[in-house]
Amino acid sequence: MSEQDHIRSHRTPRLHVDAALTPDTIVQLGPEQTHYLLRVMRLSLNAEVTVFNGRDGLWSARLHGSDRRRIAVKVLGQIAPQPPVYGPWLAFGVPKRQALEMIVQKGTELGVTRFFPIATEHAMAERLNPARLERIAIEASEQCERLHVPSMDGVMSLQQLLDGWPADRTLFWGDETGRGEPLADAADAILGEDLEAAPPPWGLMIGPEGGFAPAELDGLDEVPFLKRVTLGPRILRAETAVIAGLAIGQALAGDGDLPVRSAS
Amino acid sequence: MSEQDHIRSHRTPRLHVDAALTPDTIVQLGPEQTHYLLRVMRLSLNAEVTVFNGRDGLWSARLHGSDRRRIAVKVLGQIAPQPPVYGPWLAFGVPKRQALEMIVQKGTELGVTRFFPIATEHAMAERLNPARLERIAIEASEQCERLHVPSMDGVMSLQQLLDGWPADRTLFWGDETGRGEPLADAADAILGEDLEAAPPPWGLMIGPEGGFAPAELDGLDEVPFLKRVTLGPRILRAETAVIAGLAIGQALAGDGDLPVRSAS
Repeated sequence: MSEQDHIRSHRTPRLHVDAALTPDTIVQLGPEQTHYLLRVMRLSLNAEVTVFNGRDGLWSARLHGSDRRRIAVKVLGQIAPQPPVYGPWLAFGVPKRQALEMIVQKGTELGVTRFFPIATEHAMAERLNPARLERIAIEASEQCERLHVPSMDGVMSLQQLLDGWPADRTLFWGDETGRGEPLADAADAILGEDLEAAPPPWGLMIGPEGGFAPAELDGLDEVPFLKRVTLGPRILRAETAVIAGLAIGQALAGDGDLPVRSAS
Repeated sequence: MSEQDHIRSHRTPRLHVDAALTPDTIVQLGPEQTHYLLRVMRLSLNAEVTVFNGRDGLWSARLHGSDRRRIAVKVLGQIAPQPPVYGPWLAFGVPKRQALEMIVQKGTELGVTRFFPIATEHAMAERLNPARLERIAIEASEQCERLHVPSMDGVMSLQQLLDGWPADRTLFWGDETGRGEPLADAADAILGEDLEAAPPPWGLMIGPEGGFAPAELDGLDEVPFLKRVTLGPRILRAETAVIAGLAIGQALAGDGDLPVRSAS
């Protein structure tokens, strides 16, 4: 979490940790988190923070310990239970690094629970750095106040993606050739009548720069869970299409109608 | 327009020029456009391109001239007339440079017609470089195939923005405190019944990192055209909120239902 993020937040710092969270647990923080809390945020010992690990919900904690290069937190009590995981999945042709990192950061902010990088004729899969992408997803989770850190699958082909995709999870494919109905209509159509129910499962697929190769598109129209959609009249860059598609999908078929800061 | 953009596009290069467009006009291109066409795209003399200036619609043209460091185009005939300008306006607290440039690029892709950088207690207005931002808007316009290049107002205060805002243009304010209805509902509500009519006028306002200062918020609830909206349960970075808000607004109250590549 950067200084800028916190200035924006006016909020108690939220930290991701790996350890299991139970009352009175002492969790050692890394040097980056220590630097952020003590130097950037200028917090003192016993200052209040919140911690989460993606499994045990949200907990209050206090800064603890005397080593100012590597501080710990003492876990106090649970603030919120771990919410159910129901966010969209995102499949994307791997773009250049800057766009890739934007996709992971913004996708996390918009509630993606699982990323599927797709190797295609036009995608540069060799550029993936899983450790760095996980750090981006964790930082974005801290910043946007979600309690589940999205996972990143290994690179696979489009065919492998479709072979393993659950039949009950609609996959909206942002087809840049413009065949398909507007995503807002398609997303609205999968929403059930029960307002109390969890959002329906869905995913978004955005092809690589250059689109899929013709051979990769063979048979796509026969895939029952795949739904071609359009994102409006202008040609969007791949990362713009990802953010726009996730925002529209969440607004119409996801949790976009929930109030801000509800645990998710 | 970068090489990557064209690989994605599979399309005839589209170039922005300043000159008025009429048949047989010869328009000198700059060194960057020349480099792009001859070196990156490896086009030859007489290769077909399209040109637009934001006023005269879309025209076909051919590469022309013999100076390989600075080529010209010869304008042929009009392909599409200049469409009416009806896109959203975007008001935003000026963020750091990377986020600012993302807002201008993605905002252009998503159809913004007028940008309003807002100076606030937390905004860094001194970082604006109008010439660079205009170049980003022009390149994004070329890439996304719109025919109108958005304009950028000078920096103003929130009060100045509100004083000059047209009363009939709804301004959706992405209020990060979460008071307000979901943007999708608010945007849907301003859409008229006439399916043939142009989209209603609207704008989006996203505050600076850190939000507006309390004094700046005084009286906002009495502004008749201002509508507080939420963008979902997670805390979005300012630039993410801009992209998500524009995508949702365009999908529900804008041109998101038009087919791709319709001139706009």
